[in-house]
Amino acid sequence: MHKIGIAVLGCGRIGRVHAGNIAAHPRAELVTCYDVAGAAAAGLAAQFGADCAGSVEQVLSDERVHGVLIASSTDTHVELITRSVGAGKAVLCEKPLDLDLARVAACREAIGPLASRVMIGFNRRFDPSFRALRERVAAGEIGRVEQVVITSRDPAPPPASYIAVSGGLFRDMTIHDFDMARYLVGDIVEVQAMGASLLDPAIGDIDTAMLMMRAESGALVHVNNSRRCVYGYDQRIEVFGERGMLQAQNRHKTTVEAWGGERTRAADPVEDFFIARYAEAYRAELDHFIACLESGAVLSPGFADGEAALRLADAIS
Amino acid sequence: MHKIGIAVLGCGRIGRVHAGNIAAHPRAELVTCYDVAGAAAAGLAAQFGADCAGSVEQVLSDERVHGVLIASSTDTHVELITRSVGAGKAVLCEKPLDLDLARVAACREAIGPLASRVMIGFNRRFDPSFRALRERVAAGEIGRVEQVVITSRDPAPPPASYIAVSGGLFRDMTIHDFDMARYLVGDIVEVQAMGASLLDPAIGDIDTAMLMMRAESGALVHVNNSRRCVYGYDQRIEVFGERGMLQAQNRHKTTVEAWGGERTRAADPVEDFFIARYAEAYRAELDHFIACLESGAVLSPGFADGEAALRLADAIS
Amino acid sequence: MHKIGIAVLGCGRIGRVHAGNIAAHPRAELVTCYDVAGAAAAGLAAQFGADCAGSVEQVLSDERVHGVLIASSTDTHVELITRSVGAGKAVLCEKPLDLDLARVAACREAIGPLASRVMIGFNRRFDPSFRALRERVAAGEIGRVEQVVITSRDPAPPPASYIAVSGGLFRDMTIHDFDMARYLVGDIVEVQAMGASLLDPAIGDIDTAMLMMRAESGALVHVNNSRRCVYGYDQRIEVFGERGMLQAQNRHKTTVEAWGGERTRAADPVEDFFIARYAEAYRAELDHFIACLESGAVLSPGFADGEAALRLADAIS
Amino acid sequence: MHKIGIAVLGCGRIGRVHAGNIAAHPRAELVTCYDVAGAAAAGLAAQFGADCAGSVEQVLSDERVHGVLIASSTDTHVELITRSVGAGKAVLCEKPLDLDLARVAACREAIGPLASRVMIGFNRRFDPSFRALRERVAAGEIGRVEQVVITSRDPAPPPASYIAVSGGLFRDMTIHDFDMARYLVGDIVEVQAMGASLLDPAIGDIDTAMLMMRAESGALVHVNNSRRCVYGYDQRIEVFGERGMLQAQNRHKTTVEAWGGERTRAADPVEDFFIARYAEAYRAELDHFIACLESGAVLSPGFADGEAALRLADAIS
Repeated sequence: MHKIGIAVLGCGRIGRVHAGNIAAHPRAELVTCYDVAGAAAAGLAAQFGADCAGSVEQVLSDERVHGVLIASSTDTHVELITRSVGAGKAVLCEKPLDLDLARVAACREAIGPLASRVMIGFNRRFDPSFRALRERVAAGEIGRVEQVVITSRDPAPPPASYIAVSGGLFRDMTIHDFDMARYLVGDIVEVQAMGASLLDPAIGDIDTAMLMMRAESGALVHVNNSRRCVYGYDQRIEVFGERGMLQAQNRHKTTVEAWGGERTRAADPVEDFFIARYAEAYRAELDHFIACLESGAVLSPGFADGEAALRLADAIS
Repeated sequence: MHKIGIAVLGCGRIGRVHAGNIAAHPRAELVTCYDVAGAAAAGLAAQFGADCAGSVEQVLSDERVHGVLIASSTDTHVELITRSVGAGKAVLCEKPLDLDLARVAACREAIGPLASRVMIGFNRRFDPSFRALRERVAAGEIGRVEQVVITSRDPAPPPASYIAVSGGLFRDMTIHDFDMARYLVGDIVEVQAMGASLLDPAIGDIDTAMLMMRAESGALVHVNNSRRCVYGYDQRIEVFGERGMLQAQNRHKTTVEAWGGERTRAADPVEDFFIARYAEAYRAELDHFIACLESGAVLSPGFADGEAALRLADAIS
Repeated sequence: MHKIGIAVLGCGRIGRVHAGNIAAHPRAELVTCYDVAGAAAAGLAAQFGADCAGSVEQVLSDERVHGVLIASSTDTHVELITRSVGAGKAVLCEKPLDLDLARVAACREAIGPLASRVMIGFNRRFDPSFRALRERVAAGEIGRVEQVVITSRDPAPPPASYIAVSGGLFRDMTIHDFDMARYLVGDIVEVQAMGASLLDPAIGDIDTAMLMMRAESGALVHVNNSRRCVYGYDQRIEVFGERGMLQAQNRHKTTVEAWGGERTRAADPVEDFFIARYAEAYRAELDHFIACLESGAVLSPGFADGEAALRLADAIS
Repeated sequence: MHKIGIAVLGCGRIGRVHAGNIAAHPRAELVTCYDVAGAAAAGLAAQFGADCAGSVEQVLSDERVHGVLIASSTDTHVELITRSVGAGKAVLCEKPLDLDLARVAACREAIGPLASRVMIGFNRRFDPSFRALRERVAAGEIGRVEQVVITSRDPAPPPASYIAVSGGLFRDMTIHDFDMARYLVGDIVEVQAMGASLLDPAIGDIDTAMLMMRAESGALVHVNNSRRCVYGYDQRIEVFGERGMLQAQNRHKTTVEAWGGERTRAADPVEDFFIARYAEAYRAELDHFIACLESGAVLSPGFADGEAALRLADAIS
């Protein structure tokens, strides 16, 4: 069987997750790695028996490479997408596309129909529970969707240095919830937000937020975000419709429940953060990318989804 | 033991609930009933061995009556409050105070310090779970409150005739959630809303709504409402803070859970509607009213709470 | 409306619960009370405006009394039942009938067909959740019943003085579970037990037990018991059958769930003990007794049920 | 890094699970496979790039092989264990050791101290939730253990041909629960059982069972088993002690809960069967085996554990 060759650009935390998944995928092969910090790429390459490229150019000219996984810093995404699709590669790019909507639009115009060769790493679409929830909604289990409630709270704030370049909470964190809203109810026509700085005013950005959105379908969507959540990475979705409600609940580390004099039926904390919480989602996301490359199917979520989420963040920033 | 004598003005559905609770209260006595529809009052009086008054005047001049429970139609509340406190009676008045904030303000000015003799029937404050939740928040269990999510969905829409005079969804339904928000996080300084008419456009009012509020304390509050919920009367509260989260979940008719080939751990539908769901709350509300009359404590929630909730509804109507 | 007159014999803890329920029942009247400790009867009578009888004879000769609620000490049950039905009264008698199977048989022979006038206070049959569970089983929701698991743990051991006269754990505690097993799967044809003394060997009785039973229907039943349970009064039932499983879970004081750094989704302790846990069951039990007196229906659970449960306890003692 | 070389003997369903885990383990290498059905071994070998051996002798003389994973039919276990440890290999052998206690004892005597080189595949000890439960018990969270309730129901009966050679329900199914009981409370000194044939009498074995055991520690243990469970593979453990209770609940496919007019909070069916339910346990079991080979630690659960579980099955057969 011919395996799909993949290159990883950017060998930081999330790049390493993807590299491990590629190496473990039965129909994919981790061909080569690249990072501006050469040591990071070399270490990852050694771990999985892949090559370590000295430049992006070397990666993109490698005929064994069918797809490029872009996990580098956000400000490089647009350029790497443009060059990769230009070199005939398919792309799976981490979100967000960029912090600047104008640059995204320029990229879209530059690559034209090759945008169909770009998949955006909205990993939550591939979470088994969220996916099952959407499929059941699509199958009509609860009829027309009227309300969606998305809870998304990080366990702990990122370093101030990250926030300084992240584009702020709406672009680095809510971006996922914008995409989840669109995944569940389609295009959004109205958005309002309230933000607050309750944790550490020195950080210069809001850390707590609530949003309301109206979908073209008529459904209303609520999102709540926090940069800090002591019981873990709080990730829940509720979809309410004319014939019932579906909720995707948090995932706990074990199924153990404790009963004592003070509290009963007490579960474990929820999964720490995205790498543990969405481990299956990252694998399923990659599997979808591979399957699309094999079948020639259009990649999804695509460039337009990345741009739409960013546009919503822009609308309230 | 000297019992506290109570009169019920308005002998419809909720008046009958209150009358039953008064009759069953060990330290209260249902003295007399009145309704513009005399037969309703007569039936209720006979059921509980109380008198049936021929006029409000007769009720208010009855020296056995210490407190008046106003459960008549909303447009009579202001007048009955004014007359009752003027006659030296304490009042427990169903929400809302009135649909017109100007009339409420005029009433407040008219009764002056006697406003302290008026308690508003915000029954949810007396629900054992919501009360426990608030007490635990007040005791500091989750530290500073940062977010509140209030879910409040009725099982089925009221008749169009009701909606025509109810003041609309924000005044007849969200009014409870405004009060709950204030009960949990104090005064509200900002409110935004999105409404939708998804169920029956002919009804001439929204039936689905989402709100965001900002409290003076800094906390953000989300409310979602629907006029129709197939699994029962959905009444939940989530309070998120710096050291954790407290959720008051729905109440189910039994504790039975069913496991089968399609679904597992399936609970019963939730309580049908407010009379069943808040049966304990109505009893506790009355008990609080009685205890205040006995001790001379200030009645709470008071006139100002009723006015504040209405002001929030006005702000988005 | 003519009310059903009831007398209470035995004015201790459980007698007071019943007296309160009788007084609050819309179609019953607490006529008179009696206790060998006259002051206990006098206090209860005064609380509910009933008479205080000076002797059992006085109670049984009172024509206003239709039914007698026997809540006196176990060793008086047989005599009071015999005298009460002889005086033409219906009886609702607390469990157990007696500790001595021979005395129970003699009583049965003595009263003959009047046994149909005796209802045994197996309160758990009237718990709304257990009742719903049985009705759903009877309606065929899970097909043939194959296994039953009954968990029944008291919060704290009774005083040694109680255990000295209670007949031991199987007769004072498991007796309820024997009846529950029969209520759910019918007659029992085989029983095995393992007991252990793990809490306080000085008490002279086992405090921990497990049982297995085989019903005539073929179903197997497990019971576990403990005299001490730190998280409250643990009362659960699981019924497993060919098409699924039904579980009646514990009842918690509120619906509040707490999420923190150590534990998530933590509920309150369960209800403390039988008076709180089975408050609704005691009311429903009385209501059933009243309704049977009104309609002339055969009382159930009846004398034979009381005897059958005691026979199972005897078989393993 | 030098990898631990492993051979798989027996390439049926469970052998393939183990082979996949070995191949994916970062510090292990699947060296060779063998099966009496050569095609099964060849297919597996090809899938993972391993050798395919023509005989057990060839496997055992292969110097690259450090450990042998025995997943062949039960009647071959004793011989393969004896030969493997004789050839200097460590062994991870699927349960049960054998159906005949005398053969097991003979094997034990034959291999003498080499028994310490044998690990038994009691996979459930490695389930993350059961393991966490045991660790919390061992850490004293609930004090002395007084009662254990083990629920273990298969989704569907095996073929009659399997039951004919399996040794019966106690040896092929309860064997896991015997080991789990010993894992949680140590040695068992008394066991009683009730079996029933409720599903298909033609099968010639019981299909439903309940057991009670007493541990040397004093704790009582209940086990319930069924060959058929419509809602999936029911695998739960409850441990009750002096300071509380810990329960390991079932695992569901997703976290989605459904609310509708008939049922609320309904979860998915539980995992289908052992390969899905214990996927993580099989990986952790192998990882433990590898880690022991690396460190030289005594293998556990060991030969004596396999023999003890079989002895309990024998006691009630």
